[in-house]
Amino acid sequence: MKRVKVSNNVIRRLPRYLRKLDELSESGVDKISSRQLAELLGLTSSQVRQDFNCFGEFGQQGYGYNVASLREQIAGILGMDRGFTAILVGVGNIGRALMENFCFSDWGVNLTAAFDIKPALIGTEYRGVRIYGMDELERYLAEHTVDVAVLTVPKTVAVSVTETLTNRGIDAIWNFTNVELTEPNSKTLVENIHFSDSLLSLSYFVAERRDEAAAKSAREEK
Amino acid sequence: MKRVKVSNNVIRRLPRYLRKLDELSESGVDKISSRQLAELLGLTSSQVRQDFNCFGEFGQQGYGYNVASLREQIAGILGMDRGFTAILVGVGNIGRALMENFCFSDWGVNLTAAFDIKPALIGTEYRGVRIYGMDELERYLAEHTVDVAVLTVPKTVAVSVTETLTNRGIDAIWNFTNVELTEPNSKTLVENIHFSDSLLSLSYFVAERRDEAAAKSAREEK
Repeated sequence: MKRVKVSNNVIRRLPRYLRKLDELSESGVDKISSRQLAELLGLTSSQVRQDFNCFGEFGQQGYGYNVASLREQIAGILGMDRGFTAILVGVGNIGRALMENFCFSDWGVNLTAAFDIKPALIGTEYRGVRIYGMDELERYLAEHTVDVAVLTVPKTVAVSVTETLTNRGIDAIWNFTNVELTEPNSKTLVENIHFSDSLLSLSYFVAERRDEAAAKSAREEK
Repeated sequence: MKRVKVSNNVIRRLPRYLRKLDELSESGVDKISSRQLAELLGLTSSQVRQDFNCFGEFGQQGYGYNVASLREQIAGILGMDRGFTAILVGVGNIGRALMENFCFSDWGVNLTAAFDIKPALIGTEYRGVRIYGMDELERYLAEHTVDVAVLTVPKTVAVSVTETLTNRGIDAIWNFTNVELTEPNSKTLVENIHFSDSLLSLSYFVAERRDEAAAKSAREEK
């Protein structure tokens, strides 16, 4: 695929379009205008059109988008048809939650193995995924193609495990450790899940609402 | 606090500033310019200054920001000093992961209770938080002030539990169920954690990198 540099904000909106299109598809909608799509996502229609224009022509002026084909195009841009493989490192609560509840294959990613240090887990399978010992990690990486490492180890070992992974050629880490791994080296892509950023945004909106209610009742008392 | 309407993008950046300022503080840095802060976060310095200007005067022209006081101001804007309380509904893998590894109090939120249907859990404490039966939820909400409900129940009951919560006056939900609860009603704030959006963004960047590498080697072969 020919690639043009696209802004981070556009890239971050693509998965949201995808989810919305999946929803529309499930509800039997097969065509949608940029205006309707924009409304459903709290965007403007010109923003929607501009986002898609980054990747070529997706719709027909005045005819709207075909939901199924737009979905396929976005899935392709997101790499969902590449057959990417992932391993999960650290089968604690969050690791188990992902293995149990997060359907990697829905997003085009094949979770092929998991790793942990607990002897009781090693050699078992969880949700169809084999759990190996951490001491088998390097050999596994030498023998298999792995596109993404899902990092769900305890904080204390996040940096050392990352070193092992990057030394063995892993160049994409999905980081759940809350340790900032941004740019462990220039070659590694790190996507951080920061629960706190999300909670604090919610906290902001709650505080804003409380302040507005307080201001309103102060005005009414006057 | 006087509130002006601030764009969603600015609000989403505030927690990132906060984390970075915490890091700087821990490394003994006590002053920083907007340019330095911008560089650390991959922003422009005018963007940083504009963001802070939304909330009043934070620094002194030419003197930079005091790290500790900027941190306190941002924490205040984010509502971290309001003593917000939260309950967690659903003590499965993801619920346990949050109770075990996510320090709510670090973000100014007091996790006061958890709820589940499993008899073995009810009446126990996990990490200092008491677990109640789901049938005790309504009474608990009637008797306690709860600002945020952390929703970590299985998908299948996400909507019905949300109804119970909102009927009982909960107006902020931190939603981990992957079910779209946006606007269950006009009064409820919902903050969704979408793991898939994050994974797909990473997938995009991996695909982009692979394409660039392929294009490069194609050019070299010519």
